[in-house]
Order: sequence, then structure tokens, then C-alpha cells
Amino acid sequence: MLTSAKPQCDILVEMLKLHGVHEAVISPGSRCTPLIIALTQCSEIATTVIVDERSAAFIAVGKASISERPVVLVCTSGTAVLNYAPAVAEAYYRHMPLIIVSADRPLEWIDQDDSQTLQQFEALNNYVKRSYDLADNCNTKMRQWYANRIINDAIIMCKSPQPGPVHINMQFDNPLNTSAESTAYKWNQRSITTCTPEQRLSDSDADKLMYEISQADSVLIIGGFHNPDNELLKSLEKIADVFPNISVMCETVANMPSHKFIHDIDATVSAVPKDRLKELYPEIVITFGGALVSRMIKQFIRESNRSRHWHVSISDTTVDCFLHLERHIRMSANGFFKQVANISKRDIINTATPAYGEIWKDISLRSRDMHCEFLKKSQWTTLKAAHCIFSMIPNGWALQLSNGTAVRYAQLFPSMQVSRSDCNRGVSGIDGCTSTAIGASSVLKTTTLLVSGDMSAMYDMGAFAAPCITPQFKMVVLCNNGGEIFRFIESTRSLPQLDKCFAVSDRKYPVEKIAETFGFKIFLASSHEELKQEFLNMCAENNQPAILCVYTDGDTSADALRNYLSLKLDC
Amino acid sequence: MLTSAKPQCDILVEMLKLHGVHEAVISPGSRCTPLIIALTQCSEIATTVIVDERSAAFIAVGKASISERPVVLVCTSGTAVLNYAPAVAEAYYRHMPLIIVSADRPLEWIDQDDSQTLQQFEALNNYVKRSYDLADNCNTKMRQWYANRIINDAIIMCKSPQPGPVHINMQFDNPLNTSAESTAYKWNQRSITTCTPEQRLSDSDADKLMYEISQADSVLIIGGFHNPDNELLKSLEKIADVFPNISVMCETVANMPSHKFIHDIDATVSAVPKDRLKELYPEIVITFGGALVSRMIKQFIRESNRSRHWHVSISDTTVDCFLHLERHIRMSANGFFKQVANISKRDIINTATPAYGEIWKDISLRSRDMHCEFLKKSQWTTLKAAHCIFSMIPNGWALQLSNGTAVRYAQLFPSMQVSRSDCNRGVSGIDGCTSTAIGASSVLKTTTLLVSGDMSAMYDMGAFAAPCITPQFKMVVLCNNGGEIFRFIESTRSLPQLDKCFAVSDRKYPVEKIAETFGFKIFLASSHEELKQEFLNMCAENNQPAILCVYTDGDTSADALRNYLSLKLDC
Repeated sequence: MLTSAKPQCDILVEMLKLHGVHEAVISPGSRCTPLIIALTQCSEIATTVIVDERSAAFIAVGKASISERPVVLVCTSGTAVLNYAPAVAEAYYRHMPLIIVSADRPLEWIDQDDSQTLQQFEALNNYVKRSYDLADNCNTKMRQWYANRIINDAIIMCKSPQPGPVHINMQFDNPLNTSAESTAYKWNQRSITTCTPEQRLSDSDADKLMYEISQADSVLIIGGFHNPDNELLKSLEKIADVFPNISVMCETVANMPSHKFIHDIDATVSAVPKDRLKELYPEIVITFGGALVSRMIKQFIRESNRSRHWHVSISDTTVDCFLHLERHIRMSANGFFKQVANISKRDIINTATPAYGEIWKDISLRSRDMHCEFLKKSQWTTLKAAHCIFSMIPNGWALQLSNGTAVRYAQLFPSMQVSRSDCNRGVSGIDGCTSTAIGASSVLKTTTLLVSGDMSAMYDMGAFAAPCITPQFKMVVLCNNGGEIFRFIESTRSLPQLDKCFAVSDRKYPVEKIAETFGFKIFLASSHEELKQEFLNMCAENNQPAILCVYTDGDTSADALRNYLSLKLDC
Repeated sequence: MLTSAKPQCDILVEMLKLHGVHEAVISPGSRCTPLIIALTQCSEIATTVIVDERSAAFIAVGKASISERPVVLVCTSGTAVLNYAPAVAEAYYRHMPLIIVSADRPLEWIDQDDSQTLQQFEALNNYVKRSYDLADNCNTKMRQWYANRIINDAIIMCKSPQPGPVHINMQFDNPLNTSAESTAYKWNQRSITTCTPEQRLSDSDADKLMYEISQADSVLIIGGFHNPDNELLKSLEKIADVFPNISVMCETVANMPSHKFIHDIDATVSAVPKDRLKELYPEIVITFGGALVSRMIKQFIRESNRSRHWHVSISDTTVDCFLHLERHIRMSANGFFKQVANISKRDIINTATPAYGEIWKDISLRSRDMHCEFLKKSQWTTLKAAHCIFSMIPNGWALQLSNGTAVRYAQLFPSMQVSRSDCNRGVSGIDGCTSTAIGASSVLKTTTLLVSGDMSAMYDMGAFAAPCITPQFKMVVLCNNGGEIFRFIESTRSLPQLDKCFAVSDRKYPVEKIAETFGFKIFLASSHEELKQEFLNMCAENNQPAILCVYTDGDTSADALRNYLSLKLDC
């Protein structure tokens, strides 16, 4: 069998293998021939072939989000690598490991009017942890040592300390497909491992922080998007149990399902009258995980005149999302909260009543009752449909959410029964939600349900061409004539340009027809009764991937959502 | 009516208007609200709303390619602007004017885990002529002067001396939709014009260059992609008439149709036996226009041991595509060849026989006969289909071509009857060919025919959602099981990975079904007879946009093309 005569390709594949990379998403092209030859020889690395590089990169994001291992992306020269940029930015801000390998012509041919050439080195610079450029000549000991070192560095950089994408640009001269015999020098490959020290607060820091937490009258812990982590969940549950002065709020995509926490943050916070809300400003706010979905909680804490904010993250960026950051605790949430959970109950100084945790718990329960009443009487809207959908998802399924309204509805109706919830919240684009969900589904053992808006589903319609879609992939599309979020938010909802330029409701969103073209079974629902029936039918479909389109009116739905979020408790 | 309270938006729109910008392609988002409010107030600028920013940017490329005026692109914050990158790179290397305006959050919110934020300033840096960043505060005289100056600079930069894309990142703070009354200061807008001196060779340069051309035994003028230019065409025709020592070869996308020139360059050059080819190395090669499609002509001149290359272009990059560049003539092709055409016949020194121009003319005629004979006997292949398609295009239609094989077939069968031929040859990506063609069609008064490969048509399927597709848009898809080019080129055609990883023939390309979903009338052809009939039917369709899928076998077609290009003349 023909193998690549470009030793750097074999070095790359060998290193990927030794570093435990199991998945490659490749896109066709002639310049990347030596990479494809080398990769497809390696039985330890599964390759998925996706023609559209934008979709390919989001599929890789989906795979990496589940496996928590680096996924390698391979593309040809020219604009190919630029199509990766949106997904790479998502991975960068979501701290996910991607290894981007772009084939390039030799440096001397760039800007010389040759086909498919542009400045590729550092093309993704703002959104990768590091960029590398490797010239073609790799037949001497020193060149092979260099390639090995560069590639080791890239993979290590991609995985630790905080994961993120890296970009290796590889220049290839002709010929691209010669066999391995021509290699002059035989390298001896090493994979370099890293030892990362255990993360513990120093005794003095621990004493100080734990004392502050113990004596505070109110501490609010807020979790943004995070991978499932059972140890962390257990620590947080212990904290919620032991500390009366602590309330724990976790967004759906924080993947910390517990009845001890508040998950429907927007619904809970919005239910508190403004004057009462001021009395609930926490003394200390501790955040972990990624960017928050909830605008309400951000606004609540930003307005606070007494809150000190501690952010727990190994990031090297100072993220001051509430304008009150006092302390950046540069360690993992798991490590930090384990130490907090170890405080013994007798060391808790503040035992004021009613306790801060209890107050929020009470508000949460009462707000849920109030919202349930509203929903019972509510007419057929996206809100009503979302309530139905999120409660009907079968136990153990994985949930994927599109930006923007789908993920917001998911915050209102937490699906505690799902195995995990994910959404592209690194940069919150609508551009690759379906591709990401398909990528995730291809790695997950459970069934995956993507709940998507119609606009984002149409945006990423190329995703339906992916060959890795199985009957384990299901999709619900909220069809409400385009971007519902623009009918809801204050900045656009009253504009005369709303329909044409924002919601874009002057055209069709034939998602179901496109999905059908690619082998999906279609289900449709235009009423609450139909939804309940068709959702079950969709769940029961085992032979094909399935899509359920739920039709509601955009204007009525936006009104309903606004009304829902303006309901106030009597307190 | 509500107008934007962000004066910089009104300044932008006012400047666009005064600089003669007539087209905007906008994508929905909340951060770009003030831009959309301001733009849609302006009746002189037509706006097209496209949800997918990648497609939007290629549509803008198509519009700018025809109008030769800047087109403005407007998007929201986050990954939106990154989706522009492939089309922006195409515009950059094709020297086309695009004004990219991305809405951004205020600088202080970047990297603070806020929704849809990333480092946007300079995000397109490698592929724009200049990047600008404008803060929100624009209510003082000096801030408004600054905004006016920046925007004038951007538009001037975009148009001259050589057009190209520019990027203006505009930060907007909340609120985004307040009315104009709140503006503190009223600006007085100026649009700044530029005077560019007429381009003429100095007398001494002219004397020297014209002498060299006149005395050379052989001069080959080669035209790459170029806008239609009747003056330039006339000059080149005069040159071809007057100079016996000059042969003019123009690619299809050079848009210089003349029976005095050779257009089927690949077919002509490939028909010459290798030994004879060596005798045809020109003494001087003069190129104009963009990157060449023809690999044969590049190889021919690169192998030459006697050719001196002059490149005519106002570019500030030294493009040495044959490795023999001697002189960069930094002026427009029109200006330069007008001066050459003014040499009088009696000043021509070299009148050797047979004259160089005649030799190539003779080869071209004989090669055409030889190839016609081959085609007559040829079975049903993409080659045969392409011959039929390009000869049947009605007079005056505009032709758009996809990368990679469609544009290559177009080189073999020049369609002299079309009003113009265009293809994304700036960086030759397959990523936005359909969007570009749709954008071009929306500006053209004639019917537009896009001839596309199946892989590139599928890549850009999002294009079909564009609202600006009219019955004047027609499309022929060469359906031959994926990337035919990989079955043809030497580096991939024999690889065991060919079908799975390169041609990607293990899946369906249901282009016609997707097009039908968006209102296209479908025509299908699987034989030469069907093609002739269905092509006529497609041409006659006046009520809907139309798509004709032409089915051939990929392997047989690649073989036929290889055989066609290995035919040799007896000379």
C-alpha cells in the first residue's frame, strides 16, 4: 500500500496516536493528499469525511465536546482553513481541544497567483492558542526532530493546562503521493508527556477564603456551561446541604442536575419584584464554568451594590462579567469546591434566619407554581411547545441546543432527566449548531436530541449532508417564522424593519424538506395535542434519523414569553 | 420613523451614498441594529437580507464583480464576521471592492464571557487592505470628524488604486435603537474624492519596451481573469493584427472574446508534441489579468529556458508566476496595451517567417479539428456534455463557473457568444460558487447560467435560500459522483482513498431536490440526446429559476478528459 513520503505526516499521525487522539475530520483536496494518505493508514484514528469545512469544524467541536479529547481537522490549501474560523473561535472560547492541520503550498508560492494560495500561517491567530508553520523538507535528523518537537508542543498545548485549539500549517511541495521508500532518514519518534501538579489552595489561602465564605450572610454560587462532573456535583450538593448561607444556581448547560440547586434561573429571578430583589444581593458571588446564558442573573449581580465576585477557572484571562470581580481563583471548579465542601458544619459562622439558601429555594418553588398556572392557561405558543418538549425528553438522552431562543427556553424548563445538555455558548453563534450536535451524536452512545430554532437550522443546512448521522440523532425545530429572539428583545421588537431584516419572516424555512432529502423521517406538529403525539412517534422511530417541526406563531410566542417573564410573586 | 441615534451609522450611510455605493448585503443580529436602521432609511442603497454570512459575503462578491462598485456587508458581533473570511479572501486576491462592516460590543466587553464576543478588530487582517475600529462615542465634533475621515479613508482605500476589501469594526453600546433626537452634535458631512493621474509609460520606458517588443522573434500575450473591457479588447485585436511576432492567448474568464486570439489554451498547448513545444518558447511573455487557470501554459513557460516575463498590473505585489519575471509594468492592461497598439506597422523590426502568431494560429486550428474528431466518436462523458453545454448557451447570456472542473471544461470550449464569463479565481475555492453566481445574476440584466460541479453545488447549498434568485438565474450541475478533478489529477487518481476521501462518491448529491425545495424547476439529462433537449427546455423556462442536472460517470469522464488532453498533433 502507498504511504506518504512526507515524513512529517507520519510523525503527525504517530504523535496523534501516542497522545490518544482517536478522531479526525477531513475534507477533500489535493494539497492535503499526504496527510490523508498517512491518516487513513492509522487504524487507531477514525476519519469522517466532510466536504464543507465550516460544517467539518463544527462536527469536530461536537466530537471534542463529548470525548474531551483532541479532534484533528485536516483540510487543503486556500480558503478551506478560513471556513474553520467560526468553529475554531467557538472552541477557543469554550476551551475545547482541536488540532487544526491545514495543507499549504510551499511558502515560495504564496501571493504568486497560483491556485488556492493565500497567507495561511497565523490565519486563525486570534482564536488558537498557538500557530505553527512547517516547511516541507523533512528528510534530515534535525528537521525530523523539529517536526516531532513542534507537533508534540502543539498537542500538549491543545490539551493543557486549559484546552483550546492549535493550528499547524504544513507546506507540501509536489509530488504529493510518492511512496515511503524515498524517505532518506528514519526517525525515532517520542511523545512527550506533561506532569501537571495537583491543584489545591495553599493552607493560608484556604483558611482565608473558607473563613470569608463561612461568615458571609449570603453566598451565591452560579454555574455556567461545564462538562458533566460527578465529583463536582457531589461537592456542590454537600455545600448546598451544609451551608444555610449559600444558594447554588446552575444553568442547564452547567450539567449539574440536582434538586438542591436552582436551574430555572431566569424564571426564578424574574419572578422577584424589583424592590425585593435588592434585598437579595449576595455578599459573595462565586462563578464557575463558561459564559452565562441568563441575562437576568447578569443584570441582577451587575446592579448589586455589595457583591464581591470570585471566579473559579484556570483561564489566564481576567473575566469580570459582573463588574465586581475581586478574586480569580485559578484552579478547577472540582478542586476548589472540594475544599469548600470539606469545611465542617461547626465552622460555619453565619447562621442567620431566614437563611439565604432557604430564601431562594422558597422563591424558586413559588415561582414554579406561578409559572405552571400561567402555562396551563396559555394558548399554543413556542413557550407552551418548549415546556412540553423539554418535559417529554426520555430519560438518559443527550440534549443539544441551538442559539439563540432554543437555549433560552431550555433554561426555563430544565430537563433533569437528560444525561447532558450542550450548546455552542463559547461565542453563541447560530452558525454551526446542527453540525455540532451531529458531531456530538456520533460520539455519544445515547440518543441525541437537538432542539433548534428554524433560523439556525436553515443557517447550517449543510450539516444534513454529514455521513455520520444515525437513527440515534433526532431534531426538534421550533418553526416560528424566523428569528423569534428579535421579536422578544427590546432593541428590535418594535422596529419597522423587524420582519424583513431581523426575524427574516418574508421567506420559507423548509428545514423538514431538506432533512427529508438526506434521509430523515419527518414529523409535524401544529398544536399541543399533535406535539404530544408526534414527539412520541419521533422518539419511537428507530430506523432513520428523525426531525419534528413544531409550528407556532412568532408574534404570539414572543408576547407569551414576555408575559411569562414579567410575572411577579407577591413577596 | 425611528432613526439611529448612533451618528457614526448615519455618517457611514451618507458616505456610502456619496461615494456611489448602491448595494448592501446584511445579515440579521441585534448588535447591528443601528446599522440596519440607518441603512434601510437610505433609498439609494438596495439591501439584500441573507441569514448565512458566508453566503452573504459571496453574494456581495458576485454583485461587486459585475457592478465594479463597492458592495457593503453588514453583520452582527461574534462569529458572524468570521464567516465572511472565505469570500473576503476571494475579493482580496481578485481585487474587488467590498466594505465589511461588523457590529461589535464595546471593547471593554471583549473576552469577558459576554454573549457573541470575540476579538473582531483585525479579524480579517490578512485579506483586507486595511482594518479600522470605531468606538461608540460619536457625539462630539472631533469624534464625528474622526468617523467621517475613517470612513472616507476606508471607501477610498477599497476603490483605489487597486480595489480590494476593507474592514470597519464598529463598537456599539446599549441602547441600540434610540431615536436621532439624542444626538448632541450635528455633523457636516464631506465625501473626499481622489484624483488619480492618467497612467502612461514615460517616453523613455515606452521607447525601450516598444523596441524590445518590435524586435523580439516571439512575444506571447496571456490574459488571465479580467473584467470585460472593450477598449482593451480593441487594442489587443489591433496588436494581434499588426504584429506577426505576437500571439495572444486569453482564458475564458479574461473576457476578451476574439477570433484573433487563442482561447482554448489547454487544448492547444497540450496538442503540441513535447519536442516541438520547446521550439515555441517565447522570447517575451506579457501577462495581464489575474491568476491563470491553465496549468499547461504555466508549465510551458516555467520550463522555458529563454523567456523573459513582463507582468502588467497595478498590484504592489511582485508576482513571478513563471519564475522568469523581468519587469513589473505597474499600470492597467488597458493603458499599457493602448500604447503598444499605437506602434505603427513600419516600426516592427522582426518579420521572420513563419511568424510566431501564425504558428500558434495554425496549431490552434489543427488542434481544434483533431479534438472535434475525438469528441464525435466519444461516448457519453462529462467532456462530451461540457462540449454540448458550452456551445448551446444562448447569445448574450452571462456565464458563471464553479471551481474546480467546471471552469477547466470552460477553458476547453470557449463560449464566444456569452456576454461575460466569471469564476472565483482569486483563491479558487469551491466554497461559494453558487452564492457568487446568484449575487452576480441579481445585478446583471441578462440571464445568468452557472455551470457547476456537483461537489461545489452541494458545498454551497445554503445559497439556494437567497431571496434574490429570479427566473433569470439558471444552473447546470455536472453530476458525476463528486470531485471529478481528483479522478483526473495525478496525485490522487490512483490512490485507494480516491472514492472515500477525495471524490467522496460514497454519498448522494441531491442538488436538484434542494433546489426544488427553494422553487427551482428541475431538468435532468443522462444522455447526449436528453441533454440537447433538456438544455433547450431549461432555456425556455421563464417563470422559475431552473436547474439542469447532467449525469455522467466519473471514472469514464476522467479517462476521457485525460485522453483528450494527451492527443498530439503531427508537427
